[in-house]
This record gives sequence, structure tokens and C-alpha cells, in this order.
Amino acid sequence: MSFSYFADSIDRLIDRLKKLPGIGEKTATRLAFYMLNSSRKEAEELAKSIIDVKEKVSCCSVCFNFSDSDPCKICGNERRDDKTICVVEDPADFLAIEKTGKYKGRYHVLQGVLSPLDGISPQEIRVKELIERLRSGKVKEVIIATNPSVEGEATAIYLAKLIKPMEIEVTRIAYGIPVGGDIEYTDVDTLSRAMEGRREL
Amino acid sequence: MSFSYFADSIDRLIDRLKKLPGIGEKTATRLAFYMLNSSRKEAEELAKSIIDVKEKVSCCSVCFNFSDSDPCKICGNERRDDKTICVVEDPADFLAIEKTGKYKGRYHVLQGVLSPLDGISPQEIRVKELIERLRSGKVKEVIIATNPSVEGEATAIYLAKLIKPMEIEVTRIAYGIPVGGDIEYTDVDTLSRAMEGRREL
Repeated sequence: MSFSYFADSIDRLIDRLKKLPGIGEKTATRLAFYMLNSSRKEAEELAKSIIDVKEKVSCCSVCFNFSDSDPCKICGNERRDDKTICVVEDPADFLAIEKTGKYKGRYHVLQGVLSPLDGISPQEIRVKELIERLRSGKVKEVIIATNPSVEGEATAIYLAKLIKPMEIEVTRIAYGIPVGGDIEYTDVDTLSRAMEGRREL
Repeated sequence: MSFSYFADSIDRLIDRLKKLPGIGEKTATRLAFYMLNSSRKEAEELAKSIIDVKEKVSCCSVCFNFSDSDPCKICGNERRDDKTICVVEDPADFLAIEKTGKYKGRYHVLQGVLSPLDGISPQEIRVKELIERLRSGKVKEVIIATNPSVEGEATAIYLAKLIKPMEIEVTRIAYGIPVGGDIEYTDVDTLSRAMEGRREL
């Protein structure tokens, strides 16, 4: 904002909120007004939690997920199944899978995905560390849960080539029609994959 | 969140972001991850600006807009036209009008709108203070720019009844088709108002 309409501190807050992903000028203004109208306690709590995550949270040295302890809650939990590792691109994908409540194994967060165009080679993501973990011999299956994008697919194929010679089973999460979806409106690629991946009832 | 998937501090940040208007679980999670990945400096600046607005910004004692000075920039600006006051519901409406750059008069922020159903009577909003300002005799026109809602309309009519006996002109911003809008898709009420409010070319 070149000209300040209210107080400089409001403009500064709006400018900083605008830097957040998916937040434009209007949303930033609305959020800033909300904070101005909220109690001082509420605003302080929000500010404090922002500082807190930066101070307390780092990265688990085993699975490379966000954590405030090392190893993280999941790597340190003895009741999780040591024989399976689910490989995801980032913590958000971990969260989505963990929320299903169906998976009881371990995770490995790649912290990215192979993308030659963006200059992201296996050295840039946590591939070496994954292979190192597999050397223990405990793991029997690696489930590759990278995104169904070109990069996610390439990463899955790359990892499969690397891991299969270690005599560990490598699987890919299933492609298909989403639950509650509509076959009529499903895109051709997804539908072909759903047909290919059909299972006996 | 009943169960903590990552660190408690991440869950706490997500919980607090979720309290902001228009921010649900998914957006809050995305914002928290963004903050985790951003530099410490960036996170601290955001936290500081939140605290800053609460510390520095209060309310102009003349127009009741948000301000870090009293009177605010507009009430204290001698080049603004003293003969016109534009009445708005809240600071966001002030901002929208000020951004047009067309209005050079003063403002009065009601800090709400009459709404008998929500128990908001003239005592709850800055009506008394507006009438007080008009007593100076300098003001020749009051432009009522409350929203085109039932409450905004009722407030406009209420204010007009109160102000007209003071021999001050009371005007209402125009209703009509929005610029770039499509007559075919304009609702009946707006179109009727646009016809009524037609002007000679």
C-alpha cells in the first residue's frame, strides 16, 4: 500500500498477512479488522503461538516430519508397526493419511518431490535417509504415497527402482474414483486407472 | 483437535488460526505449515505486527474510525472538506470509499447498524456523537453510505429523520447496476432501483 489510509501499524499488518498463501488484499484487510476488534488476549495468544512453533518445532531426525521432540511421536511410539514405511512428500500429506486412522506403520517425509525442471534431484530430498532406514532390514513394505502428479509419479518410479533390489516390497496407493464421486464427471485418466485397478467383489 | 498428530505447538497454532473469520481447518493447517517453513524473521514480524495493532491502534474520538493518532489522519487533515460528512457502518466501508479517491469530505463511523432483532438500538452505535458533530453548524450535507441491507436502509431512514430538522441536506448513495455488471443477470430489486434512479444523459 503506497498511501496509508488508517494507521501505519494496520497497513503493516495487512501487508504481512498478504504474504501468507491464498490470502489477498481483501482477506488480509478482513483479518486485520478482526484482530483489531478481538480481545487483546486473543491477539497475544495468536502472536505467541506463531513464535512458539518457530521456537519449539523442528524436524524428526528419523522420519523428517515436523516435531517438537526427536524422535517424533510416531517414530518414538513402540506400538507402531516397524515393518511398513509410508513415504509422503510433506507433513500435510502425512497429516491427511494419519487422520484416516487406518495406517499403523511408520512414515518417511521426503520434504519435496523429484522435479528436474525445478532443479530438484534426489540429493535435494530425503531419499538417502530413506535408503539408510531400510538398511536395518526390519522393513518389509514401503508404501509410496506421493501425489498423483507427474513429479509424484516420477518420484514413485525412481524410489521403486532403488528399493526393489533390497528385496523389500514397494507399493503405490491406489488410483481410482473418489468415494462419493460421480463416474459421469470423472476425468478419463482417473477412470482408466480405476478400470485397470478393478478388484474382485 | 482431540489428538495431537505433530507437536502440541503446531496444533495450538492451527486452533488459533481457525478462530479467524473465513479460516477453516484446512486453511489453518496450510497457514501453519507455511509459517513453519518460513524464516524465523518473517514469523516474528507477523507476530509483532499483530501485537503492534493492539498496542497502537485505538479509535478516533471525532469520527470513531480506527486510528493510531487522535484525531485521526482524516479528521486532522485541514484540506478535507468540512461541509460534508459521509456516514459508514464500519472501518472496512470507510476504506472502500476512501480508496475511490473521489471523496474529499469527512467521515463518521457508526461502528454498527440499527438492528432491533440483535438488540442494537441507536444508543449502541455512534448516533449521538454524529448529531453532536452536526451541531457545530459547519456541515451542509450528510451522505449516508450504510449497506443496502434491511438494517442499513433502516439506519439511513432513522438518521435522515433525525438530521433533516437541523436543516442539513441528507443524501443516500445511489442504488443501481454495478459497473461491468450485466442487466440480464441483475436482480429485480436492483434493476427497479436503477430505473427509478435514472438520470438525464
